Amino acid sequence: MALFALNLLDSGVHLSMLCAVIGLVFAFVLIAIVARASAGNERMREIAGAVQEGAKAYLNRQLVTISVVAVGIFILLWFFKDHPTAIGFVIGAFCSLSAGFIGMRIAVIANVRTTQAATSSLTRALRMAFNGGAVTGLLVVGLALLAVSIFYTVADKMVGPDMAIRSLVGLALGASLISVFARLGGGIYTKAADVGADLVGKIEQGFEEDDPRNPATIADNVGDNVGDCAGMAADVFETYAVSLIGAILVGALTLAGNSAAIIYPFVLGGISVLGAICGVLFVNFANGKPAAVLMGGVLTSAIISAILFWPATHYLFPAGVTIAGALRTPTQLYFASAIGLVMTAVVVAITNYYTSMRYAPVQKIARASETGHATNIIAGLAVGQHATALPVGFIGIAILLSFHFAGLYGIAIAVMSMLSMAGIIISLDSFGPITDNAGGIAVMSHLPKDVRAVTDQLDAVGNTMKAVTKGYAIASAGLAALVLFGSYVEELKAHVTRNGEPFVFQFSLTEPKVIIGLFLGGLLPFIFTAFSMDAVGKAAGAVVREVRRQLKAKPGILTGQETPEYGTCVDIVTKAALREMIVPALLPLIFVVAVAVIKPLGPVVLGGLLVGTIVTGLFVAIAMTSGGGAWDNAKKFIEEGNLGGKGSFAHQAAVTGDTVGDPYKDTAGPAINPMIKVVNIVAILIIPIFF
Amino acid sequence: MALFALNLLDSGVHLSMLCAVIGLVFAFVLIAIVARASAGNERMREIAGAVQEGAKAYLNRQLVTISVVAVGIFILLWFFKDHPTAIGFVIGAFCSLSAGFIGMRIAVIANVRTTQAATSSLTRALRMAFNGGAVTGLLVVGLALLAVSIFYTVADKMVGPDMAIRSLVGLALGASLISVFARLGGGIYTKAADVGADLVGKIEQGFEEDDPRNPATIADNVGDNVGDCAGMAADVFETYAVSLIGAILVGALTLAGNSAAIIYPFVLGGISVLGAICGVLFVNFANGKPAAVLMGGVLTSAIISAILFWPATHYLFPAGVTIAGALRTPTQLYFASAIGLVMTAVVVAITNYYTSMRYAPVQKIARASETGHATNIIAGLAVGQHATALPVGFIGIAILLSFHFAGLYGIAIAVMSMLSMAGIIISLDSFGPITDNAGGIAVMSHLPKDVRAVTDQLDAVGNTMKAVTKGYAIASAGLAALVLFGSYVEELKAHVTRNGEPFVFQFSLTEPKVIIGLFLGGLLPFIFTAFSMDAVGKAAGAVVREVRRQLKAKPGILTGQETPEYGTCVDIVTKAALREMIVPALLPLIFVVAVAVIKPLGPVVLGGLLVGTIVTGLFVAIAMTSGGGAWDNAKKFIEEGNLGGKGSFAHQAAVTGDTVGDPYKDTAGPAINPMIKVVNIVAILIIPIFF
Repeated sequence: MALFALNLLDSGVHLSMLCAVIGLVFAFVLIAIVARASAGNERMREIAGAVQEGAKAYLNRQLVTISVVAVGIFILLWFFKDHPTAIGFVIGAFCSLSAGFIGMRIAVIANVRTTQAATSSLTRALRMAFNGGAVTGLLVVGLALLAVSIFYTVADKMVGPDMAIRSLVGLALGASLISVFARLGGGIYTKAADVGADLVGKIEQGFEEDDPRNPATIADNVGDNVGDCAGMAADVFETYAVSLIGAILVGALTLAGNSAAIIYPFVLGGISVLGAICGVLFVNFANGKPAAVLMGGVLTSAIISAILFWPATHYLFPAGVTIAGALRTPTQLYFASAIGLVMTAVVVAITNYYTSMRYAPVQKIARASETGHATNIIAGLAVGQHATALPVGFIGIAILLSFHFAGLYGIAIAVMSMLSMAGIIISLDSFGPITDNAGGIAVMSHLPKDVRAVTDQLDAVGNTMKAVTKGYAIASAGLAALVLFGSYVEELKAHVTRNGEPFVFQFSLTEPKVIIGLFLGGLLPFIFTAFSMDAVGKAAGAVVREVRRQLKAKPGILTGQETPEYGTCVDIVTKAALREMIVPALLPLIFVVAVAVIKPLGPVVLGGLLVGTIVTGLFVAIAMTSGGGAWDNAKKFIEEGNLGGKGSFAHQAAVTGDTVGDPYKDTAGPAINPMIKVVNIVAILIIPIFF
Repeated sequence: MALFALNLLDSGVHLSMLCAVIGLVFAFVLIAIVARASAGNERMREIAGAVQEGAKAYLNRQLVTISVVAVGIFILLWFFKDHPTAIGFVIGAFCSLSAGFIGMRIAVIANVRTTQAATSSLTRALRMAFNGGAVTGLLVVGLALLAVSIFYTVADKMVGPDMAIRSLVGLALGASLISVFARLGGGIYTKAADVGADLVGKIEQGFEEDDPRNPATIADNVGDNVGDCAGMAADVFETYAVSLIGAILVGALTLAGNSAAIIYPFVLGGISVLGAICGVLFVNFANGKPAAVLMGGVLTSAIISAILFWPATHYLFPAGVTIAGALRTPTQLYFASAIGLVMTAVVVAITNYYTSMRYAPVQKIARASETGHATNIIAGLAVGQHATALPVGFIGIAILLSFHFAGLYGIAIAVMSMLSMAGIIISLDSFGPITDNAGGIAVMSHLPKDVRAVTDQLDAVGNTMKAVTKGYAIASAGLAALVLFGSYVEELKAHVTRNGEPFVFQFSLTEPKVIIGLFLGGLLPFIFTAFSMDAVGKAAGAVVREVRRQLKAKPGILTGQETPEYGTCVDIVTKAALREMIVPALLPLIFVVAVAVIKPLGPVVLGGLLVGTIVTGLFVAIAMTSGGGAWDNAKKFIEEGNLGGKGSFAHQAAVTGDTVGDPYKDTAGPAINPMIKVVNIVAILIIPIFF
């Protein structure tokens, strides 16, 4: 039986490795296709080269900064925890960084080729931008699946299954921590450059977007790549790896000895790689409106996965499995995994409603702009808050149902299945910044206006896609964090049993320590986002001062007779972003350790803290990302000629809303996603501190 | 023993009634003093009369609207609950309404007299405005103490002690529900009028604040009275009554048979009335800077209470009391009550730091205004979020310590002691709108500029005081709601025992239903405030349209040759506020009942919901009230001549921030306070639905 179990385990994990490799091969084919396309004329290549160089320079310096922190944590884990966990941490950190690099590298190749494709047709530009995103999607998912399965297989052989599973937590920490840095650093960079460029360029000088006379314009385009591409890729890598590891942990902790429970999440991940490939093929061969084609790709991918999950579940659990004292049929397990796919569709649809300019919320913000800046802001804040209701309601239903089908393991499976869609979802997300850059290159290369018209059309779709995938990321992150909290509780139990004491911690709401924990945890997303927004404000201030200095020192810039020093702006915003990311990125880490170390608080307060962070984090993140997306598209709605169009009073107010929304949706909001997982993972790792 | 207990109970409650009566008598003496002062010249009296009339008309119509809802709930309680609870509901509702009327009546008498006093000296104006506020403070506290003690004494005689205590929950519901309506209705009124008047008046026409040519200016001044005075008075009445009732409930449920536990909260309340009177006397005889004199009054009040609590505690609990299996000494109980006083001071100091223009946060917002509207908004939002950290941290410490000293009863005592300071705190809060009105009357009556200078100086102090008392109100509301949640759990236990089943509900964070409850509850403050802000937006839109119509129909208004129809604006905003308050006010009620009625959810989800609402409610409310206060004073900081002063680019951005802050700090934020209590009280009342 044990032998069979081992074989099943091996074969299941090998299957998922195979799927991962297929995904990677497919991604390399796509790279070849993208790279072979024309990169346009010399001016275009020159600008793309400058953006590429700035992005590379930033990521290299970010690497140095993050390495200092990572080495410190590695040393702590090596000496105070155990070697496998420390090694897992390094692997997680390395892969998360790599995911970021991949995301950026592909985007800077695809952007200029999208511009060139836009000179011939909308469909070709759409496919080029989408394929660039799809490369990132498949590489990130393939990398995550391979990293976890190889590490797990090797560790299983070398230190035994128990330790192998425990050391996966180290890998999760590495992935999450790097992802917080990448999200924040990239997020601060992109928004500081964007806000800084807009404040002086658009408001003081009346420049258009991406005007080559604006010294911050290259930095602004670099920002799209290091924030929306690199930061996002690291973030999704992290969410994927952590969800997979969380499902393995819960499978091992609550279904000890049943190796199918450990394989199942790997298999779901592997299958969905195949689904994602089908989705990518659909987009490359379908014709129609951009938004419809992209949604068709997601749907194809989900349907393929849903079909293949059925035989896989029945093969792994032919006689079902006993969870929490009740036998669960394979069909019940299948339902748990199907919930993840349905949740993906539901969250995508809801966020689309709140952030697309075709529906009431965005148009309400646009109309509120007619009475001024303040009413635009009030309307946007209200839309963001309204947008939390439905996702949270559906998350509640998903928890209730998946728990009903298969206990905590059911929730873990639902999350993994939701995350298995990441391959195709990232393709959508990267699509946005690639088209945004493509538009920038078109303007800066003085291409005809109709090229920009094509990229603008795709950019508006990209805005909604970005908001939609952020809704997806935060919803899945909330669920994944809940699974981690479950692991924290299980791990705590295991520890107390080891000491021979029969005591089981209760996390009852009637216990004041739990309430205090909920308050402290609830606080974290509020101050984390406050620090993040402050960071953007400070970094943007540095950009404003530099742009003003250049325009004053070289008056010829305004008339086009002198070239601005783009490099200095890139340099300043690089330094500022790296400086400003440190405090908010380390905040959750320090917070959790502080609560753990202060004696009167202890493990019960910490448990409350984990849940408190998840609860308020979910609301704050959804409100920020949806509100920000809605503000952005309200501006676009007016720019399309509604309510007075560009240059009207309403447009000015809408620009204010968009600027407020920038750090909301691209810095603070999405960074909550890895943050709530760092908090939960650190809690699991420091449990021994209590004993 | 039982006889002695009854006597002790009677004498303790009688003592608190006596103190309440002393407070009321003192308040009437103050009324006489205020009313005897000169109401100024004919023009001043005319304007004050118009404001008075508008406020009365609004409150009368609000009464009709609220009565419809109240009668419906009374009928439900009468037929589906029990008669004493239904009667308690009516009394609570009536007293809460009365508190609102009192607050408004006194304010409209004091405002014009403050203007007149400002013509002679700053100190006289300060005392006049403060005494107006003090009348409200003492009347509200005296009324609350009398209502609860008389109702309890009578019910105790007629239906026995058990039923008497249960029916107090009805009184709490009446008070809280009316208070939600009053806070929302008044809050929507005051901000719709304010925003509406500013949008057309200041931005489109370039009027000064309170320009008599602005048709919405009387409505704006009416708003201060119906929102900041009447709404606030109803709110504090509710918080006071609910904290008192919560402490009695917890005393009765966890210390069954110990009547001293029930008397103690009454005695604390009674003593603090005496403390408040001393504080009022201090302000009337001290000299110095306005802010320092007012703070001196609060400090005097707190010190007197702290001294008198000591013998009272030792007299009531000479041998201590056993709580949760451990003997608590009288000194430990005293510490629990002292924590409430210390928390008041701490919350006041923290909120003062975040909202006073003398400190870094407000000045940061002011400086951010120099780069535009958007950076002002981002800075203000960040300050609001930062401002949550310290209060929540201290609330955590207060919970930990007071629970350590005397279990859940200790928390209840700390809350009651914190609320016992309401008498003096309301005096500060009402001070703000009275001086605001006084300034308005000065401008509209064409009094010399130095009169306005005096009222402006007091108004800036009033802004901070208003923010400070809101911080106090929400912190105490959060703690009071936790006590109510404790009562919900205890009451649930009692119910299950009655049915003979040994089952005790667990509210463990490892139970998915608790997590779902936390999510649903956490959602409530977000959508509640979203609806409230929408309501302000819609009502303000109605005002904008009316003002534009009048200025177009009567061009002579602009040149001063025609008089605007102030009454139509008052009428329109009255109707709009009453219409728009319905949805958000009923939302929490319907939400709780819906969760209770949907079968798969049940009492455990509801328990999670109660705590979830408290957790996010606390953060959202503090962020909104502190952020709003900081925006307001950042504008005032610039208007004092800093960073370019009035009319500069920075000033325009600061006006935007102030306008966004208006519904934050005066409508949505403070309304969360009664809302989280309504949710908890309704939950206690509908427990039988589960069985």
